[in-house]
Amino acid sequence: MSQQRVIPNFKRSISICTLFLPMLFCMLAACRSNVPARATDVAIETQAVHDLLITQQDDWNDGDINAFMQGYVRSDSLRFASGGTVRYGWETTLERYLYSYPSRDAMGTLEFSDLDIDILSNEWAMAFGAWHLTRGGDFRDIGGLYTLILHREADGWKVMYDHTSQARTASQ
Amino acid sequence: MSQQRVIPNFKRSISICTLFLPMLFCMLAACRSNVPARATDVAIETQAVHDLLITQQDDWNDGDINAFMQGYVRSDSLRFASGGTVRYGWETTLERYLYSYPSRDAMGTLEFSDLDIDILSNEWAMAFGAWHLTRGGDFRDIGGLYTLILHREADGWKVMYDHTSQARTASQ
Repeated sequence: MSQQRVIPNFKRSISICTLFLPMLFCMLAACRSNVPARATDVAIETQAVHDLLITQQDDWNDGDINAFMQGYVRSDSLRFASGGTVRYGWETTLERYLYSYPSRDAMGTLEFSDLDIDILSNEWAMAFGAWHLTRGGDFRDIGGLYTLILHREADGWKVMYDHTSQARTASQ
Repeated sequence: MSQQRVIPNFKRSISICTLFLPMLFCMLAACRSNVPARATDVAIETQAVHDLLITQQDDWNDGDINAFMQGYVRSDSLRFASGGTVRYGWETTLERYLYSYPSRDAMGTLEFSDLDIDILSNEWAMAFGAWHLTRGGDFRDIGGLYTLILHREADGWKVMYDHTSQARTASQ
């Protein structure tokens, strides 16, 4: 008889576990989407942002502005600030690039340097660095600094906010 | 006798709760420091960042660069990027402001506009906007855009990374 009384109580202990553990994991999973990455994750995510920017640099140097634009969030939320002007949206930003760099000579050779990447959370990252365009023909070299805020999309990190500024002299 | 067997099992249930609940709260507290704010928190934090920038604007317009500088993280981590040049550290940034704006006329009247604030996590925020200095005497008006990354310090939000750019023409 006493044994019969033990079993339901043991079951009650189990049921508490089966109640709390899924709750615990659900709550942690809810947190997880916004928890900043652990040290190992930070290294992986930093590398992912770095790779995105190097891919953009390579695409530019292949003369492919459309491929370069794949590094940006494809939405109207995209903000591109440059030369005192703010543009919104992926299409508008693409048009600005095509207008400002109408030929392969105008595009020149892009080099990013002094890259500093911070993973701010599981969703947001920041990249800061210098850019330089080496150009020939009628086009002078230009360069400056950029601050990018990247958002993690379904298909990886993408630039959501871009603030690019041009130095008055662009000697490297 | 059967009742005696029940009590220890009930205690075991309690002990599972007393074990799991503090664990649960500790783990959630660990998450909490980096969980992005809820909607109400976002509104409060957005207002806090907004207030910091308006305080900076007011301090500038009182001609008090030292007070203006209280809006920045007082550490060597502070990065100030402007005109193609990057400066690190609070003291260096203060020196740059004192050098660039040596008089009340040079400082003029600062106006921030088009402010856009994003609370990225419990620790990080972004502010984007336009700045304009209305100046008299020998000084022409200047203005442009800024992207600020703010970090929540023990005494509130402070600017950690500042990318300020100047438009070629600063008409408002």
